Amino acid sequence: MESTVIPVSLPQNAYQILIAPGQLSHLGDRLQSSDCIRGTLGSKMLIVSNPQIWKHYGELLVQTLTQAGFQVDFLLLPAGERYKTLKSLQKIYDAALRHRLERSSTLIALGGGVIGDMTGFAAATWLRGIAVIQVPTSLLAMVDAAIGGKTGVNHPQGKNLIGAFHQPRLVVIDPQTLKTLPAREFRAAMAEVIKYGVIWDAQLFAQLEQCPRLDRYRDLSEAQLAEILQRSCQAKADVVSKDEKEAGLRAILNYGHTIGHAIESLTGYRQFNHGEAVGLGMIAAGQISVALGLWSAQGLERQQQLIQGAGLPTHLPTELDPNAVLELLQTDKKVAGGRVRFVLPTGIGTATLSDQVPPEVIRAVLSHMQA
Amino acid sequence: MESTVIPVSLPQNAYQILIAPGQLSHLGDRLQSSDCIRGTLGSKMLIVSNPQIWKHYGELLVQTLTQAGFQVDFLLLPAGERYKTLKSLQKIYDAALRHRLERSSTLIALGGGVIGDMTGFAAATWLRGIAVIQVPTSLLAMVDAAIGGKTGVNHPQGKNLIGAFHQPRLVVIDPQTLKTLPAREFRAAMAEVIKYGVIWDAQLFAQLEQCPRLDRYRDLSEAQLAEILQRSCQAKADVVSKDEKEAGLRAILNYGHTIGHAIESLTGYRQFNHGEAVGLGMIAAGQISVALGLWSAQGLERQQQLIQGAGLPTHLPTELDPNAVLELLQTDKKVAGGRVRFVLPTGIGTATLSDQVPPEVIRAVLSHMQA
Repeated sequence: MESTVIPVSLPQNAYQILIAPGQLSHLGDRLQSSDCIRGTLGSKMLIVSNPQIWKHYGELLVQTLTQAGFQVDFLLLPAGERYKTLKSLQKIYDAALRHRLERSSTLIALGGGVIGDMTGFAAATWLRGIAVIQVPTSLLAMVDAAIGGKTGVNHPQGKNLIGAFHQPRLVVIDPQTLKTLPAREFRAAMAEVIKYGVIWDAQLFAQLEQCPRLDRYRDLSEAQLAEILQRSCQAKADVVSKDEKEAGLRAILNYGHTIGHAIESLTGYRQFNHGEAVGLGMIAAGQISVALGLWSAQGLERQQQLIQGAGLPTHLPTELDPNAVLELLQTDKKVAGGRVRFVLPTGIGTATLSDQVPPEVIRAVLSHMQA
Repeated sequence: MESTVIPVSLPQNAYQILIAPGQLSHLGDRLQSSDCIRGTLGSKMLIVSNPQIWKHYGELLVQTLTQAGFQVDFLLLPAGERYKTLKSLQKIYDAALRHRLERSSTLIALGGGVIGDMTGFAAATWLRGIAVIQVPTSLLAMVDAAIGGKTGVNHPQGKNLIGAFHQPRLVVIDPQTLKTLPAREFRAAMAEVIKYGVIWDAQLFAQLEQCPRLDRYRDLSEAQLAEILQRSCQAKADVVSKDEKEAGLRAILNYGHTIGHAIESLTGYRQFNHGEAVGLGMIAAGQISVALGLWSAQGLERQQQLIQGAGLPTHLPTELDPNAVLELLQTDKKVAGGRVRFVLPTGIGTATLSDQVPPEVIRAVLSHMQA
């Protein structure tokens, strides 16, 4: 796989997504040799990661950055969505103070979406904003969380209620780190990849349909993985460039997330991971779209095949109360004027927004998914 | 006093400062009749205040907003700099969730700088940013904290280390609220007013010299107070408009704050309030400037007269260790490349930045101020 650079064209905060195998071992040199970066970063860096990731890549990253002349420190936080809290954030602040980070210093997020979101939010709010470099090591973070500047932590009663927009200075994707990604997380991330196919890129969707298997890293060829990463990152970069702060278009990226967030929350962030919940949410939103006459049953069926092919769950637990989901949707941040807004597919590669979904339809779809 | 509108001309986040006696009782109408505001605010509002302020103005504000058709809730937090913490912030988030604030909802900060900073930061980070209206009731907040979008909370080891830039949608100043301001706070705020005179507005400085007394609200005429508020707000608006995110010029507003913050922190935020600490910091920075040959002894003496005339402390407690101040300065967020940056007056109405102040000079000045 060759090295690819995808620009994220924002008027004030433009940056690049760099996709290159083995890049992690050469990041220091890369920062010193890149025209867009060289000389803009101070000398101090604080890497935030978790112990599982650190075991594989910590030493490598410290070495390349130190050799390039940076003063590097690190902080490890426990892995998992349930640690994406104000308390973990406080630990990053404490480390930032301990290491005397200055306005010119840089935070580096080495890990999945949880590490990326928290580290990004810490960077957004330490000294009212310092630089952050996102180094996603999970497929989910590579194609979604690391790009676009959404940062934040969870409130005990809802995901991502506390946060800020803060674009990274650079996103560095080393596909080789996917080797160590747990199989379940790889499958989960495919939900977001499929999402881009459904709402934005029909060609990506068709290519996914041609992969013999979507549920295992080792069954994808290097070329297939390259295509998936590039097209997914490009889709995210396209949408974010057109709507940095989610004034309109960007909301379509929430396809599957409205109900997905509610499912994650009501199951205590334990039963399903984020991607699995989004997959379930996409099935629900797809069914709603068909029920409202906005999408064809055939399109829904093709989506179902991909989600199943990625080895993702397709049924809701019977103990999940559809009324509890409806209740929680009301507190979801995508509520506008008291009405819940859904992203609904209208074809392969296109979607629309609607806040006119009758609660009865949502309830019926959720009940149907428990069967 | 007539009503005055001062525009804060920011490219993306322009807003107005409204100075008008009695305005608090008419805010609801004002929001509904203002061309810049009408129709841009959602229906839900959450007022954040403290019990002392609420006692005087809470009912009035709820009444005018409710009559204008807004759904209003409120949260009271304990008064004082030592409550400007992540814990208080968490309480605002909890209230935001309880009242189901949406992206179109508005936070209203009714109180002094502590309430304004915390409420502004909560608005910056709730759902990644909602609107905030600043209604400062202290002189300090009117002329400083409420304008310019600096928001945040303190870290146990340093002031304002955690925060974000988030401009208000509107700043509403009702000078009549100063009637209930404790005398000590009125005096303290004069430090910031004098600061604008020293670093930006020689005419303001001269007018302050002509006031018979600066230490009591009741000794200022309505016209004098009007002039002080307008010129101070204008100075802040001028500087902020030219440098929204403190890339350069805006740093001069930190005159007196570098050492002032260290003094506040080392005395546990109890012995001196913010304005008093800034007054002491201005005396220190002024003496440093004279010691370095950048300012005249006469200018320093005129500043000293105003600070004394405002009834502000001019000596440091003997138990404050100058070395502890120097140590703490290193962790201050205005450190650049490991060097502490000072704002130093070069005349009445002008100042410069310097990171070349020898530690011995700082130590000598601090020791001298203990005499």
